[in-house]
Amino acid sequence: MLEMRYPIQIDEAVNRLMAHCLDSKVELIPINSCDNRYLAEDIIATHDVPLFTRSGYDGYAIRAEDTQHCSSNTPLQFKVLEELAAGIVPQQELGPYETSRIMTGAKTPNGANSVIMLELVKEFNRDGEKYIVIKRRVQKGENLSHQAEETRRGETIIKRGTRINPGVKAVLATFGYSQIPVTVRPTIGIFATGSELLDVNDSLQDGKIRNSNSYMIDAQAKRIGADPIYFGKLPDEIETCYEAISFALNKVDILITTGGVSVGDYDLMPEIYKRLQGKVLFNKVAMRPGSVTTVTALKGKLLFGLSGNPSASYVGFELFVRPILRKLLLSENPYLKYEKVKLACDIPKANPFTRFVRGKLFFENGMISARPVGMDKSNVVLSLAKTDTLIVLPGSTRSFQKGEKVIALLLEDEEGSQMLWQDSDRNEQVSSMSTIL
Amino acid sequence: MLEMRYPIQIDEAVNRLMAHCLDSKVELIPINSCDNRYLAEDIIATHDVPLFTRSGYDGYAIRAEDTQHCSSNTPLQFKVLEELAAGIVPQQELGPYETSRIMTGAKTPNGANSVIMLELVKEFNRDGEKYIVIKRRVQKGENLSHQAEETRRGETIIKRGTRINPGVKAVLATFGYSQIPVTVRPTIGIFATGSELLDVNDSLQDGKIRNSNSYMIDAQAKRIGADPIYFGKLPDEIETCYEAISFALNKVDILITTGGVSVGDYDLMPEIYKRLQGKVLFNKVAMRPGSVTTVTALKGKLLFGLSGNPSASYVGFELFVRPILRKLLLSENPYLKYEKVKLACDIPKANPFTRFVRGKLFFENGMISARPVGMDKSNVVLSLAKTDTLIVLPGSTRSFQKGEKVIALLLEDEEGSQMLWQDSDRNEQVSSMSTIL
Repeated sequence: MLEMRYPIQIDEAVNRLMAHCLDSKVELIPINSCDNRYLAEDIIATHDVPLFTRSGYDGYAIRAEDTQHCSSNTPLQFKVLEELAAGIVPQQELGPYETSRIMTGAKTPNGANSVIMLELVKEFNRDGEKYIVIKRRVQKGENLSHQAEETRRGETIIKRGTRINPGVKAVLATFGYSQIPVTVRPTIGIFATGSELLDVNDSLQDGKIRNSNSYMIDAQAKRIGADPIYFGKLPDEIETCYEAISFALNKVDILITTGGVSVGDYDLMPEIYKRLQGKVLFNKVAMRPGSVTTVTALKGKLLFGLSGNPSASYVGFELFVRPILRKLLLSENPYLKYEKVKLACDIPKANPFTRFVRGKLFFENGMISARPVGMDKSNVVLSLAKTDTLIVLPGSTRSFQKGEKVIALLLEDEEGSQMLWQDSDRNEQVSSMSTIL
Repeated sequence: MLEMRYPIQIDEAVNRLMAHCLDSKVELIPINSCDNRYLAEDIIATHDVPLFTRSGYDGYAIRAEDTQHCSSNTPLQFKVLEELAAGIVPQQELGPYETSRIMTGAKTPNGANSVIMLELVKEFNRDGEKYIVIKRRVQKGENLSHQAEETRRGETIIKRGTRINPGVKAVLATFGYSQIPVTVRPTIGIFATGSELLDVNDSLQDGKIRNSNSYMIDAQAKRIGADPIYFGKLPDEIETCYEAISFALNKVDILITTGGVSVGDYDLMPEIYKRLQGKVLFNKVAMRPGSVTTVTALKGKLLFGLSGNPSASYVGFELFVRPILRKLLLSENPYLKYEKVKLACDIPKANPFTRFVRGKLFFENGMISARPVGMDKSNVVLSLAKTDTLIVLPGSTRSFQKGEKVIALLLEDEEGSQMLWQDSDRNEQVSSMSTIL
């Protein structure tokens, strides 16, 4: 018996998914281990930056007004009061024609309003006192960084949901955040299905292939910032299968299965969804590959049934699992970043469904372009190794020409997008074609 | 006393560094923990892909020639021999007008040369035997993936030095690589110098600032794939300092210090380099920020003296430490990826030295552009959080205009470049300006 399914549009599928709320949890972790985690709170400046007016160079702190009539013909002498290393608090205020030796980063003494670089003065001693000679005019504020010129205490400087990169980490250290509030890594359970699957350690057998999907999804989950757990291969027997999935659902935020979601005689997943009594958000999407992607909500968890084909499962993860994960990580930009790119070659075959073609980005005279990598059948694994983008070809009765502008989804990007891309010329007849999808 | 230093060009500095050989080590690790590591060997296809000719869809395996005269007016009947699930080895060869039910991914039976999709046939029973009716012509090869059509056994499919992303991991699993040969993560020691530095846990003190450089470099090292070790703050006393550095050098591949490399009275590093009796590769580079960057080679190790200013130390890491690390990781593309980008605003001030301006990349009508982030003094920490590129402004007596094309170095890119970028219009007078650098 062929089950009838009604495909929905991709944006509708993603919207149904994103309307679903999962619980984000927060934890404090030491700054040493916060790399690539996501901030769970806005980060506030705990003090002005700079905290005090300081010297930008090695030199002498002076009152700029004292140099007004300096020139190489009329050099002037300044008396040196003290020596200010970085970290030292100045003890003496500058009076007219007085100066203090000052190092890069040191706090300027009261009275000083500029610094002249060491290379531009001549030092000498007289009667056991130190002096310098200045032969040029110095501008007020020269070589100084003023208190609070970068930021004021209390300002929000980094938004929650931001991934912690080296620069963010430097800012956290600057403001004394030794314990960082981050979102707990969501846990993602992974099951493989399919009696044709061998484990990576198994030797080859005729008719069988090795399970690569579980390893790939494990890596995709880590790339986004989740903690994957591999639960193994689902058995072919429906009762055991149901129990394994019920057990795993209690251990994770999101559960992913690959394979078994089609309408073939050996596809057990649809029956399992019925037994679990969850709410099927969708079980067919107007797209290639991955049209049979099924998502079920139950007990505050999401169960993703991805196709067993490597490419379909790769695309299914990036389109559907990634944004909900990024939402869980409190990102304001949960969707894949997208750009209009130049297509680097013809794609002669038309297709009524929106296609996601594995591709590689490159630049040509500053223009971003994308070329498909390798062959594009949905069971091709090799090309995934080179993939850094999914080229979106909207469903259409026409082919695509080299040089045409199309949307590309950027897979290696960390920043994301606030919105899902919009197909510019979607084929409106798609919904009537469900039976041949 | 002011020590005289002679600045060299950036490419010359990088070349001296890259000519230096450090030892790459190889280890085998389980596939589960290979994410983001670098392959130490070329990966070879251990079998054909596909390993056998298989079905791309759920349907019926047939001999295409039997359908030559099929049409909706002249439907034909085929007798069903067996049912082929994925993973099953077919037992029966197809004769004329015979078929076998076949699932996605299953091996095709002998005699079959195409598959007709399940949706396009009608099934029926007669005398306890199964039959199907076909009403259209099927092309030879339709819905099949042929043995070896993706790759042949023995082909090199992924080059050593490649970073392991989800697609690469899927390929490794496909070919049964359960233990992955990767380069050992290089260890990078980090010391901070400066008596003005407070630890991240310390409360603020007048005249002092918190150490952010060590945390930042720790994160930069991890981003590239190294293992950082923070050795703490170097003391102000030269003997203790010398011993601490000698000790640390034995524990790491590369040692980085921040601060103390200038010519100020409190800059101890130049004296330490002398005592260590290493070979100073360079101690001044014609660039801003980071001109005082010093690199010393000794005992098969490299000692990087980066500036104490956060931006200078950030740039110094990316320009000098990153490529040698990537070389250690056996990458064929050790340098930062660069692209010609459109400058998003005027940069009015000219500078005789090549400048690296912290920036952010964006796309405008498919053109890659970059805008400077925040202020651009070399002690600015905040803007580093938003930085994903360094805009290269070649030394020149002229300013830069909005819309002009300049080189940008891509910091978040994983792929790298085989070559260092070339300044298009370098100012040749640079070397005569050493004293005011």
